[in-house]
Amino acid sequence: DFLVALEETKPLFGVAEEEFEECTRGGLIKFSPGIDSILDVGEADIRAVREPNSAELLTTLLHGPPGSGKTALAATLALGSEFPYIKLISPKNMIGMNDAMKVQQLDKIFRDADKSVLSVVVIDDIEGLLDWVPIGPRFSNTVLSALRNWLAKVPPKGRRRLVLATTSERSVLEQLGLLRQFTGQIAVPNVNSHDDLAAVLRESGVFTDKQAIKRILAELQDTTGESEVGVGIKRILDAVTRAKQSRDAPGRFAEIVAEYVVERTGASGQ
Amino acid sequence: DFLVALEETKPLFGVAEEEFEECTRGGLIKFSPGIDSILDVGEADIRAVREPNSAELLTTLLHGPPGSGKTALAATLALGSEFPYIKLISPKNMIGMNDAMKVQQLDKIFRDADKSVLSVVVIDDIEGLLDWVPIGPRFSNTVLSALRNWLAKVPPKGRRRLVLATTSERSVLEQLGLLRQFTGQIAVPNVNSHDDLAAVLRESGVFTDKQAIKRILAELQDTTGESEVGVGIKRILDAVTRAKQSRDAPGRFAEIVAEYVVERTGASGQ
Amino acid sequence: DFLVALEETKPLFGVAEEEFEECTRGGLIKFSPGIDSILDVGEADIRAVREPNSAELLTTLLHGPPGSGKTALAATLALGSEFPYIKLISPKNMIGMNDAMKVQQLDKIFRDADKSVLSVVVIDDIEGLLDWVPIGPRFSNTVLSALRNWLAKVPPKGRRRLVLATTSERSVLEQLGLLRQFTGQIAVPNVNSHDDLAAVLRESGVFTDKQAIKRILAELQDTTGESEVGVGIKRILDAVTRAKQSRDAPGRFAEIVAEYVVERTGASGQ
Amino acid sequence: DFLVALEETKPLFGVAEEEFEECTRGGLIKFSPGIDSILDVGEADIRAVREPNSAELLTTLLHGPPGSGKTALAATLALGSEFPYIKLISPKNMIGMNDAMKVQQLDKIFRDADKSVLSVVVIDDIEGLLDWVPIGPRFSNTVLSALRNWLAKVPPKGRRRLVLATTSERSVLEQLGLLRQFTGQIAVPNVNSHDDLAAVLRESGVFTDKQAIKRILAELQDTTGESEVGVGIKRILDAVTRAKQSRDAPGRFAEIVAEYVVERTGASGQ
Amino acid sequence: DFLVALEETKPLFGVAEEEFEECTRGGLIKFSPGIDSILDVGEADIRAVREPNSAELLTTLLHGPPGSGKTALAATLALGSEFPYIKLISPKNMIGMNDAMKVQQLDKIFRDADKSVLSVVVIDDIEGLLDWVPIGPRFSNTVLSALRNWLAKVPPKGRRRLVLATTSERSVLEQLGLLRQFTGQIAVPNVNSHDDLAAVLRESGVFTDKQAIKRILAELQDTTGESEVGVGIKRILDAVTRAKQSRDAPGRFAEIVAEYVVERTGASGQ
Amino acid sequence: DFLVALEETKPLFGVAEEEFEECTRGGLIKFSPGIDSILDVGEADIRAVREPNSAELLTTLLHGPPGSGKTALAATLALGSEFPYIKLISPKNMIGMNDAMKVQQLDKIFRDADKSVLSVVVIDDIEGLLDWVPIGPRFSNTVLSALRNWLAKVPPKGRRRLVLATTSERSVLEQLGLLRQFTGQIAVPNVNSHDDLAAVLRESGVFTDKQAIKRILAELQDTTGESEVGVGIKRILDAVTRAKQSRDAPGRFAEIVAEYVVERTGASGQ
Ligand SMILES: Nc1ncnc2c1ncn2[C@@H]1O[C@H](COP(=O)(O)OP(=O)(O)OP(=O)(O)O)[C@@H](O)[C@H]1O
Ligand SMILES: Nc1ncnc2c1ncn2[C@@H]1O[C@H](COP(=O)(O)OP(=O)(O)OP(=O)(O)O)[C@@H](O)[C@H]1O
Ligand SMILES: Nc1ncnc2c1ncn2[C@@H]1O[C@H](COP(=O)(O)OP(=O)(O)OP(=O)(O)O)[C@@H](O)[C@H]1O
Ligand SMILES: Nc1ncnc2c1ncn2[C@@H]1O[C@H](COP(=O)(O)OP(=O)(O)OP(=O)(O)O)[C@@H](O)[C@H]1O
Ligand SMILES: Nc1ncnc2c1ncn2[C@@H]1O[C@H](COP(=O)(O)OP(=O)(O)OP(=O)(O)O)[C@@H](O)[C@H]1O
Ligand SMILES: Nc1ncnc2c1ncn2[C@@H]1O[C@H](COP(=O)(O)OP(=O)(O)OP(=O)(O)O)[C@@H](O)[C@H]1O
Ligand SMILES: [Mg+2]
Ligand SMILES: [Mg+2]
Ligand SMILES: [Mg+2]
Ligand SMILES: [Mg+2]
Ligand SMILES: [Mg+2]
Ligand SMILES: [Mg+2]
Repeated sequence: DFLVALEETKPLFGVAEEEFEECTRGGLIKFSPGIDSILDVGEADIRAVREPNSAELLTTLLHGPPGSGKTALAATLALGSEFPYIKLISPKNMIGMNDAMKVQQLDKIFRDADKSVLSVVVIDDIEGLLDWVPIGPRFSNTVLSALRNWLAKVPPKGRRRLVLATTSERSVLEQLGLLRQFTGQIAVPNVNSHDDLAAVLRESGVFTDKQAIKRILAELQDTTGESEVGVGIKRILDAVTRAKQSRDAPGRFAEIVAEYVVERTGASGQ
Repeated sequence: DFLVALEETKPLFGVAEEEFEECTRGGLIKFSPGIDSILDVGEADIRAVREPNSAELLTTLLHGPPGSGKTALAATLALGSEFPYIKLISPKNMIGMNDAMKVQQLDKIFRDADKSVLSVVVIDDIEGLLDWVPIGPRFSNTVLSALRNWLAKVPPKGRRRLVLATTSERSVLEQLGLLRQFTGQIAVPNVNSHDDLAAVLRESGVFTDKQAIKRILAELQDTTGESEVGVGIKRILDAVTRAKQSRDAPGRFAEIVAEYVVERTGASGQ
Repeated sequence: DFLVALEETKPLFGVAEEEFEECTRGGLIKFSPGIDSILDVGEADIRAVREPNSAELLTTLLHGPPGSGKTALAATLALGSEFPYIKLISPKNMIGMNDAMKVQQLDKIFRDADKSVLSVVVIDDIEGLLDWVPIGPRFSNTVLSALRNWLAKVPPKGRRRLVLATTSERSVLEQLGLLRQFTGQIAVPNVNSHDDLAAVLRESGVFTDKQAIKRILAELQDTTGESEVGVGIKRILDAVTRAKQSRDAPGRFAEIVAEYVVERTGASGQ
Repeated sequence: DFLVALEETKPLFGVAEEEFEECTRGGLIKFSPGIDSILDVGEADIRAVREPNSAELLTTLLHGPPGSGKTALAATLALGSEFPYIKLISPKNMIGMNDAMKVQQLDKIFRDADKSVLSVVVIDDIEGLLDWVPIGPRFSNTVLSALRNWLAKVPPKGRRRLVLATTSERSVLEQLGLLRQFTGQIAVPNVNSHDDLAAVLRESGVFTDKQAIKRILAELQDTTGESEVGVGIKRILDAVTRAKQSRDAPGRFAEIVAEYVVERTGASGQ
Repeated sequence: DFLVALEETKPLFGVAEEEFEECTRGGLIKFSPGIDSILDVGEADIRAVREPNSAELLTTLLHGPPGSGKTALAATLALGSEFPYIKLISPKNMIGMNDAMKVQQLDKIFRDADKSVLSVVVIDDIEGLLDWVPIGPRFSNTVLSALRNWLAKVPPKGRRRLVLATTSERSVLEQLGLLRQFTGQIAVPNVNSHDDLAAVLRESGVFTDKQAIKRILAELQDTTGESEVGVGIKRILDAVTRAKQSRDAPGRFAEIVAEYVVERTGASGQ
Repeated sequence: DFLVALEETKPLFGVAEEEFEECTRGGLIKFSPGIDSILDVGEADIRAVREPNSAELLTTLLHGPPGSGKTALAATLALGSEFPYIKLISPKNMIGMNDAMKVQQLDKIFRDADKSVLSVVVIDDIEGLLDWVPIGPRFSNTVLSALRNWLAKVPPKGRRRLVLATTSERSVLEQLGLLRQFTGQIAVPNVNSHDDLAAVLRESGVFTDKQAIKRILAELQDTTGESEVGVGIKRILDAVTRAKQSRDAPGRFAEIVAEYVVERTGASGQ
């Protein structure tokens, strides 16, 4: 019935692939050596699950600041596994569901996964899934309970599962007792140094000439008084798009990014 | 199916336009150069979304004190975009709805938006939508969750969306983890200086002669001991209406505005 | 359809008038010049709404200590407006209704109001409507949300609305974010000075002779050691009724009022 | 229809009388002059309501320590009024009802009262009705809201109502904003002095001889080191019953009462 | 109808007796003179209720540390009363019931009791009935309210009721306002002194010879450094059972009891 | 009907056995003498229940850090008892159940157990069953109440029950008042010393040669500066699996374990 199980998951596979493509549409810019190490560790876990008589269940958490690329990295790893069952669990695909419906969907996905010999389940944005709000704080108890149990429950004999999860709120997961459920953790960094930023800009297709990049870095340094950038790749790419509309695109780009830096450091600014 | 999508949104367009007109009925008085800059930044975001192969999703927050004109400005920008789908989400149009119904309506509006190649959704008075009350504090978790996910969810391939949102409670949005979802922010100011106030009065159609204006400013300065006004444009316009009924309209106007100033500064007063 | 709208509201008018009469049954005793100023400001707002092409929506809050006469004053103003639609919203007429039913009734009243060219809606005892309890504190979120939105929502084009609201808990309204929704505020005073009290007694129909009044004031001063009364007109009138049963009516009256004074000042007493 | 209303309430009257008898079964022992003053003030309020063209609504609160006799006094006053409609509202007759059912019953009783020209409604043990628990604190919001509104709502024209309420938690009522709703308040005392206690014992039918009473008082003073008793009449009468079973009844009585005194003063004891 | 009432309660009686037997299966070991005093006071209350024209309602609370024998003592007293209606209310017989069902059952039992001239109702483990949890704290408001009212409600004329209740959380009952409802209280002690413990062991049927008992006491003193035991009779009897399995039963018994002592005193230990 | 009861439980037995096998699949590595003592104490409790006329009910709690092997040990003991009824209650088998359903299932299992003369019920991961979350804190009141009562309720006459429970949150159980319900407690340790770790590695089937083990211990000591390991057996075994994928398996193993140690001690690290 191994083949049957494979068959059964195939149609699901197609659907899921589409969801993952949305997350990887922007591609990966290897703006720092850290990006490759992340992929290495993730791929080792995939191998550990793929090999029979090895791990039945590994659960790996990608954590890092907002917009640092966690979802894109998890999706890339999942797609790369070529496991017969890969599936994305994301709050963005659960708008308007109440807690009971969310738990039902979670359950279905994990039960389906356990019909396949090999499966990857990506749990994206755990704090979003939990409807976490720092005020209160509030969160969904029932979703938390389902997650906790599914992270710990080993698949039936002969099946093997990899869970890749993402969060911007690692300390929250710790307080909720979820952190200790993971067998491994990977930190995802911001675009931090001027070198990182230059690497992104070179790949951006907008600020390709050296002079423009140099000017941007100089202005950024000037406005913020900081040599550290510390902004997520997502915002950097958004800033490129918005600045492009401006007559002085590089100047406007430096301005927008500077606002982000200042927001973080609390210096000057708004 | 691009044309089909356009067709489909047309009837919706009409309805929405009416709603927006209610918000812009009072017109815009350009009482300070800041008003034009606001419109500039907003229009740049509109251009960034309009242009194909550029931003799929931009989300811009207009924030400022109560009655400073946020709604009128957002509505003006939305109407000016001439996008095929523009829609207003406002708590005032959701009286008597429970949270589930609100989320359903939110969902419908965003899903409809994503059928159009280009769309603007105005989310007016976010704290009102959330039924935010500082005591407790209390707010709707389910509406918050829906907003958070819709602000982050990119439209399907080939569609592009601009979200314009307004709030008088920027710090609340920060605490709720909503602020970081926005790609851009615009601050909307009060009528602050005597020059600002004079500009408003000149356009009011009531206190048109120079002497009356001069007297009003003098009396305001006298009563409050302040050269800063710091009152929203909405209250200024209301004060004009109420004072008009008085035999000594300028005197009564200065009196009413002075009460507002004193309420803010805590000096003298009630 | 202007005439139709007028017609439609007429039958409602009768019902409402009865409700208002209950609030004004006791009449108004002008025990201090402040009472006339209150009526002046209120009537100015009525005029501002009555005049076409002027204010579309004015919202005025009467606030003051318990039993100071807020409801009687608001009802008197509403009846005096002679607007085609006047209506009273009061918690006393909503006993046994749950929050949803209250909001439904609120909605109906405001929607009906907006069918009339001119309307006055009296929202009596806002904290009562909200089921406000200082312990907790507790209050109805849904009623608050409905009130907040109806206070801000401008009537449809060509219709004009005046809202008169009353509260003994102005600071609570501030904490709840309701205060800033009002375009105007009027403070309603207690019976404060001995002159105020004498004026009330002269009109009471019980202690009409000068000597009795003089004795009452003297005994009050003696017992409480205070020349300030600081008691609401409602309690003063109740005390007259209760004291009337006593053999020594003036003495008993002074005694009862003294208890109220002492309760307030915390001096001597119980 | 005045006579009709009277007719209608008559059958209700009988039922209520039975309820009141349960509260007055133990009789009143006038152990101190304070008991007569309480009855005097209560009867004055009854007269003020009975007389036409006088008070439409008086609401009087009997407050005092647990077991001090509040219910018995309120019931005695109500029965003595000989008003055509008298009714007891008590949590003990509402066991197993949820809040909605309680409010419904409250409403029915007050609406029925307002069909009678004259009515007395006794609201016994307000904190019990509210399911008040100091931990939390917790209480029923909906019952509170109903009580608050019924205490304030004047009867329809031509009807007059007296409300007698009891509480052991006056300060709680103050915190809940209920206290200010009452037009009058009466404090009910404990059995406080040795003279009070002796008076009770003389009427008890058990410790009738002087020597026994003297011995009891002496032993009480000895054990507690207190000349103040400070125990409710209810516990005193219970202690008589329990001690009667003992071979040394006076000694056992002194022992039991001493335990109560010590519990209150915190001296020696358990 | 007195006989009818007796008849009606008879079948109930049988059922209840079975429940009580479960609580008294272990018998009573009179390990200290305190045990007899407890039974004396309880029996006096039974007599006071049994005698006509005496107490209509007595309510006695047995309070003491966990496992000190409260339930066994209350059950023994109830069975000994030989009243025609005796009934046990215990959370252990209400597993899976929601609050409404519990209150319904409570109501039925008390209403049935009031059909009998004489009744004993045992309310076992009040904090358990209330689902009391110190964290929060949490408890069932509706069960609390039902208990409070039934403890205070006097039976109908001619019927008499004794309530025996047990709790390990006397201070909780005080905070909940339940303590003052009881007409009497009895403290139940732990096995405290070495003499107490020796008495229990002598009756245990396991450690009957003097030497074994001596050794146990010595080892206990040695390990804990305490001459006070302070462990409930229930745990002592459990320790006997568990130790019996061991080759060195006395040594193992001392070990287990020492663990309990240390847990209490916080000395040495785990 | 003893035989009938046995029959009835047999089919249940098979099902349960499968559940237990999942928990014991990994086998037990006796990495320290503590493991044998745990099994000894547990087996003594089994004997005490098996022997007729001895304990009717014993309840034993296995507590220890996460992943220390509590579930595997409890399951091993239960399987070893060879009692006719053994059953596992685990949150992992209750995903998607609401509180009412969980309590129903708990009830069924315990009621079924009490049909068998001898039964073992394993309550695994009590804090998970209670949906315990430290933030708030939150937990299921109804499940707690059911557990508390089932832990205390003695089986019907002639039946005997052993309950084995596991928790990583012993102090939580104490705060919830559950701890005192247990007749016995057993502490389960981490892999603590280098000797413990070496014992595990020798049995791992991966790092079998002495040199590799020596190197691992040395590197661990170097990186962490600690000679204490303090990691649960579960994580140690997971680390073996993951490291196996690496070219330098021993080095990678030391690296992963070092991360766990550092996480615990807070030294160096992430
Ligand atoms: N090296 C990279 N790593 C990750 N994402 C990258 C990288 N280079 C480019 N990207 C692009 O940057 C964006 C990262 O967005 P993504 O949603 O993955 O971030 P995130 O950390 O999940 O954000 P959030 O905190 O909002 O969930 C994607 O559009 C992705 O295609
Ligand atoms: N420069 C201006 N900017 C905005 N509004 C203006 C301006 N000049 C005049 N107005 C008028 O002032 C009013 C501003 O009210 P608006 O409801 O937009 O304020 P708001 O900040 O959204 O208030 P709130 O905080 O209550 O939501 C409108 O009637 C608008 O027509
Ligand atoms: N000058 C006055 N202003 C208001 N009320 C007056 C005046 N003179 C007499 N009254 C009478 O005093 C009473 C005031 O009661 P009213 O219910 O209006 O007070 P309130 O402030 O609304 O009380 P509450 O705080 O309980 O709502 C009415 O019976 C009214 O007829
Ligand atoms: N002077 C008295 N005043 C009141 N009650 C008296 C007096 N003398 C004897 N009694 C008897 O004392 C008892 C008082 O009990 P009652 O229930 O009225 O007290 P309570 O204050 O309402 O108690 P609780 O605080 O429990 O509601 C009654 O049985 C009553 O008959
Ligand atoms: N003198 C005694 N008093 C009470 N119980 C005794 C005595 N001697 C022996 N026992 C036995 O000790 C056990 C006491 O347990 P019981 O359940 O009554 O205690 P408890 O205080 O109600 O416990 P819990 O606090 O758990 O409710 C019973 O099995 C009882 O038969
Ligand atoms: N001596 C041992 N004791 C317990 N488990 C062992 C031992 N040796 C090896 N193991 C294996 O280690 C694992 C222990 O995991 P188990 O789930 O029992 O731990 P746990 O303490 O219940 O974890 P959790 O805190 O997550 O519930 C099992 O796979 C078991 O087979
Ligand atoms: Mg993401
Ligand atoms: Mg606005
Ligand atoms: Mg009023
Ligand atoms: Mg009473
Ligand atoms: Mg007990
Ligand atoms: Mg476990």
